[in-house]
Amino acid sequence: MAVLPPGVSAEAFAAATRAFAAAAGDEWVFTSDDELIPYRDYWSPVPDPEEALLPSAAVAPASVEEVQAIVRAANEHRTPLFPISTGKNFAYGGPAPSMRGCVVVDLKRMNRVLEVSDERNFALVEPGVSYFDLYEHIQQRGLNVWIDCANPGWGGPLGNTLDRGMGFTLGYYRDHAGAMHGVEVVLANGEVMRTGMGAVPDSRTWQDYRYAFGPDPSGLFPQGNFGIVTKMGVRLMPAPEHYRTGLVTVPKRADLRPLIAAVNYLSDLFMIGEPLYGSPLGRLWGDAEFREAATRRGGANAEEMDRLAAAAGLHSWQVELQFLGSEGTTLANWDYAKSLIARRVPDARFTDIQSVPLPLTEEQIALGTIPDQHYLWRSNLGIPSLNTWQSLGRSESMPDAWRQNHVGMFAVIPRSADGVFEAQQVFGDTLRDMGVGTRISAISTPVNWYQFSFLFSAGFSSGGGRPESTPETRARDAEILKTLMKTAAEHGWAEYRAAPWFQDAVSDAYSFNNHALRRFNETLKDAVDPNGILAPGRGGIWPRHLRGNRG
Amino acid sequence: MAVLPPGVSAEAFAAATRAFAAAAGDEWVFTSDDELIPYRDYWSPVPDPEEALLPSAAVAPASVEEVQAIVRAANEHRTPLFPISTGKNFAYGGPAPSMRGCVVVDLKRMNRVLEVSDERNFALVEPGVSYFDLYEHIQQRGLNVWIDCANPGWGGPLGNTLDRGMGFTLGYYRDHAGAMHGVEVVLANGEVMRTGMGAVPDSRTWQDYRYAFGPDPSGLFPQGNFGIVTKMGVRLMPAPEHYRTGLVTVPKRADLRPLIAAVNYLSDLFMIGEPLYGSPLGRLWGDAEFREAATRRGGANAEEMDRLAAAAGLHSWQVELQFLGSEGTTLANWDYAKSLIARRVPDARFTDIQSVPLPLTEEQIALGTIPDQHYLWRSNLGIPSLNTWQSLGRSESMPDAWRQNHVGMFAVIPRSADGVFEAQQVFGDTLRDMGVGTRISAISTPVNWYQFSFLFSAGFSSGGGRPESTPETRARDAEILKTLMKTAAEHGWAEYRAAPWFQDAVSDAYSFNNHALRRFNETLKDAVDPNGILAPGRGGIWPRHLRGNRG
Repeated sequence: MAVLPPGVSAEAFAAATRAFAAAAGDEWVFTSDDELIPYRDYWSPVPDPEEALLPSAAVAPASVEEVQAIVRAANEHRTPLFPISTGKNFAYGGPAPSMRGCVVVDLKRMNRVLEVSDERNFALVEPGVSYFDLYEHIQQRGLNVWIDCANPGWGGPLGNTLDRGMGFTLGYYRDHAGAMHGVEVVLANGEVMRTGMGAVPDSRTWQDYRYAFGPDPSGLFPQGNFGIVTKMGVRLMPAPEHYRTGLVTVPKRADLRPLIAAVNYLSDLFMIGEPLYGSPLGRLWGDAEFREAATRRGGANAEEMDRLAAAAGLHSWQVELQFLGSEGTTLANWDYAKSLIARRVPDARFTDIQSVPLPLTEEQIALGTIPDQHYLWRSNLGIPSLNTWQSLGRSESMPDAWRQNHVGMFAVIPRSADGVFEAQQVFGDTLRDMGVGTRISAISTPVNWYQFSFLFSAGFSSGGGRPESTPETRARDAEILKTLMKTAAEHGWAEYRAAPWFQDAVSDAYSFNNHALRRFNETLKDAVDPNGILAPGRGGIWPRHLRGNRG
Repeated sequence: MAVLPPGVSAEAFAAATRAFAAAAGDEWVFTSDDELIPYRDYWSPVPDPEEALLPSAAVAPASVEEVQAIVRAANEHRTPLFPISTGKNFAYGGPAPSMRGCVVVDLKRMNRVLEVSDERNFALVEPGVSYFDLYEHIQQRGLNVWIDCANPGWGGPLGNTLDRGMGFTLGYYRDHAGAMHGVEVVLANGEVMRTGMGAVPDSRTWQDYRYAFGPDPSGLFPQGNFGIVTKMGVRLMPAPEHYRTGLVTVPKRADLRPLIAAVNYLSDLFMIGEPLYGSPLGRLWGDAEFREAATRRGGANAEEMDRLAAAAGLHSWQVELQFLGSEGTTLANWDYAKSLIARRVPDARFTDIQSVPLPLTEEQIALGTIPDQHYLWRSNLGIPSLNTWQSLGRSESMPDAWRQNHVGMFAVIPRSADGVFEAQQVFGDTLRDMGVGTRISAISTPVNWYQFSFLFSAGFSSGGGRPESTPETRARDAEILKTLMKTAAEHGWAEYRAAPWFQDAVSDAYSFNNHALRRFNETLKDAVDPNGILAPGRGGIWPRHLRGNRG
């Protein structure tokens, strides 16, 4: 049951794989079912197995020159490629291609850390460098910089940045695409291009200034299909000497408004790291009266929720603030946060949580805790780990099913209480209308991964891409997700990211002026990749001859 | 002596101006010499007046629809356009076009501040909004945000961002192109496109998340010619409650190394605003022995400089640190800066300079000072002003001539002492070889406008574009500048910006792999602007039919 790219004959495909073998060596071209298992999406959300996004082959080059040769061969044989770096972003398709039949170009053999500076604070890495690799490189050399790593840390900075992933430290560094400083790309015509100051031969400032002179096309590579990125510069945060956290709670539902405004203020002055919002009212979830007030159609019953919260002696909202700096500066920032919030919410309560001198000892890292302190969340401290699933389980309202679920919706909503309240109601009602429970309620809180916006996630319990899922559960999941996406778009919101199976559905939301943005991008795409060989469909961008494939 | 665009007949041009008049109204199309004076570069560096970058006409639309109609007419009549917003960037050509004969599209009638949020901290503005306009809008409404303004403040956020200008507050906001969040653009085909979340109809988060889904072409607009930007979102910094500055000096030449590393550390943790480097050794400039040591060919005589500095009781380097926050956080940050630097340079000296509660009073702003405190540099405090020339005069080694000079070189160099020392030597020797004095010496310091890199400027005294300049002085200036640019490129450095007359010379430095970046950009350009009507040559990017114009 060989999978072939659309429109490519078995003969042409055989010729292409021979050419790939000539480029990368026989032993680095994979075509058998067994060999291709690692390039499947284990948690695939695709309902019909016949439509699963399977690769036709994979090739693993060891150098830029080999990537160039592969791209030239792909042009000659009109064979679409799908580059991956570590291929570990399982919530977004993992190593599987954006179109069934693409040849996966697996770049994990190109895994050198080319440079790290803790005087100028950057790294230059190849695609196969994982967060663990980069962390180890830094530790072994005693360099005084942090990485801002995704969680889990088996992914890497280059691939995560190209997915527009994010991390958990200071706002600037959390936005990985924003911290990208210069890339080297193999273009669809096989040529090598460098952006930013890398365009200066023997550049001395490739990672120090991101734009070069003239228009900067760097933004076309994240979530795009304009080239195969073979090197990437990323800004690194200096290693702070102290980590401090403090918990703020506010009593009433309406207090979320001044709370978020104050936290935005602190955040945009870079006085805090990632704020972690939550609601202590999860403890009332067993109370039917409360649940009804928090899931009322058309909007929460705020008065009733406030009454029940007060009766239970609970505050309505909490935010854990993280401070990175010295012992003195983190304390000053926390003290200032207290005074700023207390001015706006006089009844707010403040609790010191952690105060940790850095760097952590080996033992502290291994233990994941410090005596008398809360659990240390490693990725908040620039340490890669595999404790993601715990991360997703932190909120008390997070269902068990979600922990294994690899699809979901993360809509960009305004960083304001009004934005949160509206999202709670709209997504909650939508899910309730579809009979998928009470996951979203008036105590659901957003994540503030990206500094200037909230992401509001709508999980659901029908089974996701879990191993025990069936075509029926997956079809149902897809239906729910697409309904959520459509609902979001009707409210002026949209998702920032999508697994390949949903790339067109998400892209459809960005339809201003009859999809002017997508049409512009596709005009650019056709100009620089006339044969459409690079990742067709990625980011919703299809080359001319495959545009009919848009889902 | 009518100026016409290349290849456009007088008849075609007349038809085009009639079409522009139909689009924007007769009274908003300017064709006479008198009317076009405001669209000249008053400080033009162009040696031969016959080659001056003069417009053929100008048109001032009042709306997006009028811009669209103008673009469509320009396509029909193959008439190149050059859009300007306030047109006040006089160091970079002012309102004059990138190619002689372009029709200037003057957008200053489109001058609405469309939205400012001090809950989510952003602004959405039209092209004609100046920094003064935006500041006034914010003050009148009592909004709690700062602008990060260029100096002088008669420019505006949209145009300055498109020039990749920078300001003077926290690193994130100083990089104006980096703080850009979403644009509306009239494309070369006359269509309107919105980038970022603006691509979602009735978007609720246009200024909150910059990337949209899929590839992001936003970077093609700054220093580019891919569209006429008609709206722009910019992130704004929350207004801090306290401003503090402290002066650090270190005794020896070699102390610059640990000093810069420490300041980079503080900067990249966002604990300081723009660091202002300088050298107290300017006071020794009258000493021939010192001058010789500081301008020695092949590199400074560091031992001799250190000896003379010590004999005079002077320190070699200084940096003024700026802190933005509350009284407590700025003090904690300054205390931490002291301890951090003292650890690395035990002989460093620290002086408290300013400690100013914010907001400033009207009187303080008008006075420009506070009793017993140093001069308040308004643009460091988010207040637009016209005191640029004083800014340029702050350094004691800055020559009088430079204050009136509107061309110069700003090369991006590494943010390290090694980078500074090498730039001092290379540019200094180059200027000395050309017999243009001792402007660059071993006490010249860079500016840290962009957070992660230094800009090293090489001024020279031959006359620049000053009113009293002659074709000969201008030709000489151009020769010197181009020599500096070439020298920079030979050392892996390059300029981040260029006046139109030098756009190709600067672009030439970015030649990696036979100009792969420029060729990629020009392929994109031809695809979306096949008639090449938008700002030919801007950023070094020429449309196909004018590529022979490359200077």
